[in-house]
Amino acid sequence: MSDELLKLRNEIDRLDEEILARLSERARCAQRVGEVKKGNAPFYRPEREAQVLRRLAELNPGPLPADAVKSVFREIMSVCLGLEHPQRVAYLGPAGTFSESASRKQFGSAPSFMPMATIEDVFRAVEAGNTDYGVVPVENSTEGAVSITLDLLLASPVKVCGEVNLRIHQQLMSRADGIGAAKRIYSHAQSLAQCHEWLNRNLPHLPRIPVASNAEAARLAGEDPESCAIAGEAAAQLYGLNILAPNIEDDPNNTTRFLVIADHDAGPSGKDRTSLVFSAPNRPGAIHTLLEPLAQHGVDMTKLQSRPAQSGLWEYVFYADIQGHQCDPAVAAALKALGERAAFLKVLGSYPVAAI
Amino acid sequence: MSDELLKLRNEIDRLDEEILARLSERARCAQRVGEVKKGNAPFYRPEREAQVLRRLAELNPGPLPADAVKSVFREIMSVCLGLEHPQRVAYLGPAGTFSESASRKQFGSAPSFMPMATIEDVFRAVEAGNTDYGVVPVENSTEGAVSITLDLLLASPVKVCGEVNLRIHQQLMSRADGIGAAKRIYSHAQSLAQCHEWLNRNLPHLPRIPVASNAEAARLAGEDPESCAIAGEAAAQLYGLNILAPNIEDDPNNTTRFLVIADHDAGPSGKDRTSLVFSAPNRPGAIHTLLEPLAQHGVDMTKLQSRPAQSGLWEYVFYADIQGHQCDPAVAAALKALGERAAFLKVLGSYPVAAI
Repeated sequence: MSDELLKLRNEIDRLDEEILARLSERARCAQRVGEVKKGNAPFYRPEREAQVLRRLAELNPGPLPADAVKSVFREIMSVCLGLEHPQRVAYLGPAGTFSESASRKQFGSAPSFMPMATIEDVFRAVEAGNTDYGVVPVENSTEGAVSITLDLLLASPVKVCGEVNLRIHQQLMSRADGIGAAKRIYSHAQSLAQCHEWLNRNLPHLPRIPVASNAEAARLAGEDPESCAIAGEAAAQLYGLNILAPNIEDDPNNTTRFLVIADHDAGPSGKDRTSLVFSAPNRPGAIHTLLEPLAQHGVDMTKLQSRPAQSGLWEYVFYADIQGHQCDPAVAAALKALGERAAFLKVLGSYPVAAI
Repeated sequence: MSDELLKLRNEIDRLDEEILARLSERARCAQRVGEVKKGNAPFYRPEREAQVLRRLAELNPGPLPADAVKSVFREIMSVCLGLEHPQRVAYLGPAGTFSESASRKQFGSAPSFMPMATIEDVFRAVEAGNTDYGVVPVENSTEGAVSITLDLLLASPVKVCGEVNLRIHQQLMSRADGIGAAKRIYSHAQSLAQCHEWLNRNLPHLPRIPVASNAEAARLAGEDPESCAIAGEAAAQLYGLNILAPNIEDDPNNTTRFLVIADHDAGPSGKDRTSLVFSAPNRPGAIHTLLEPLAQHGVDMTKLQSRPAQSGLWEYVFYADIQGHQCDPAVAAALKALGERAAFLKVLGSYPVAAI
């Protein structure tokens, strides 16, 4: 090894020791936080973690990119929190799904992760206190809203205390080894739209046939080597298809959104979101009237999603995400006014905008 | 918030700033290492990473457990290496499999991970230089050796430069909601053996029926609500079964072993393993004679696995793992003697014993 390399390695060893000393001191502080809090407050504070990550990303002098700094401190907070109070996190199993990836992205590697068979089971585990946190998918850029999660959020006493965004990728797959003999491409309409430009550039001549789901597209491609499908990798594995072109989505930010649920929501972090659900009568202009208070108080709405009401009490329920925390005066005033107009309003929780 | 909590948080913020400063300085050192090495040596040195992790685990003053310290420094090394030279890691897809978990356990979050459709594709990607590293399963405590990996190791010019052990869990599953009506339990014989004590304690009255694979057991359970299966969670998801009891394996250290392959193996780290494959004639005592040099030179063998030879040139090939690095004088002498006795000997690579 060259002298210079040896010197650099010794320098790295010295820095590692200094980091270890401070990491251990940080862990001792976390232990004391646990002792002070004992029985008084939740150990995991999503708003505090979001603030720490944002602050360090701002202080970051480089050369590491901000995401790399966040990724290291996510793990540091994860192991310190694990020492303070071992966390249990339930997610939609099996192990190795995107829900597990989302859980690890939010909680690092330290918690005890509990795979559940269904989304209902994740909610039940949180309600019964068998887990500290649950992670459930709520919106899939490909398949749209996850209805069962929306319905459970309406009915369950759990609170939303965090959000996680996970990138997802689209794969071109077929039973054939190459694209040469392909005659058609099956996929969900939204997936075809997501790969529109790639398809125009690479396979402009092939007809695109929208089907009910990406899994159905993969199943059809599995029956006929002249057909391709666009779907996620799990579908390729399930139906024994070859991936002919990976990651063909036009938008590299194609994501699935997950919510973190618990028996409490989060305090204000300075950059928050609030999720709510409210009822609206099926009357022209009803939803416009209901949303007026948000506009009046200058509260931005980042999502609005309607669902037919299941209870029969109302005709529609609307799921909305708004910017800000329910403790913010403007948000509080807007929610108060909305609550007076809507037959039903439930605030699902305020939580920090995804920090990592 | 109490004064004490506030003081602790300020202390944590100060420590985080100090860690960030040293992390950034470490990253600058890593960049300089990259400049010094440019074109001369592989950027990723598994032996160096193993040494760093072992050293820090030894220096660790607590209160964090050694595994937590390793987990933080794994991520620190991952993001620093990503800056030095962005790594590409191919693994047996789809995303979200145990192979992906193993890849992240070895390489942290920074590399660009490339899911491949088959184990052959992982080998081909490494051989063609389309990836820097490949991660392939080699031994599954449930299903035994992964034959295709063994066959490819024999034929391919790639080297083994690392190993990863991943825990796996066994689940009791059924179409029914409870165990009450169950009449039998299907599983692979090895899985039944792995859950022997749990079954004796909890379900001593149910007959255990060994079948070809855990997936086959889950398929059978999916056809009959009076049957249970023991299998991994992915099988429960695939066949729509409920998990009646999670993680029922008797040995909590039940693991699957993965190998990291590349165009180079690893230098000595002080605690290494060497994988080799050699041919043996089908003659009484032949294998005993072949292995004599290992015993003579005091080299421990940690694994021996026979495979019928496919080429017709030899009758059997043996895959062995021995302790130590091929640069260690005793190992080198033993390998030299073994090579003189065997018709064929190939050293697949020396690499650090899994450090995390």
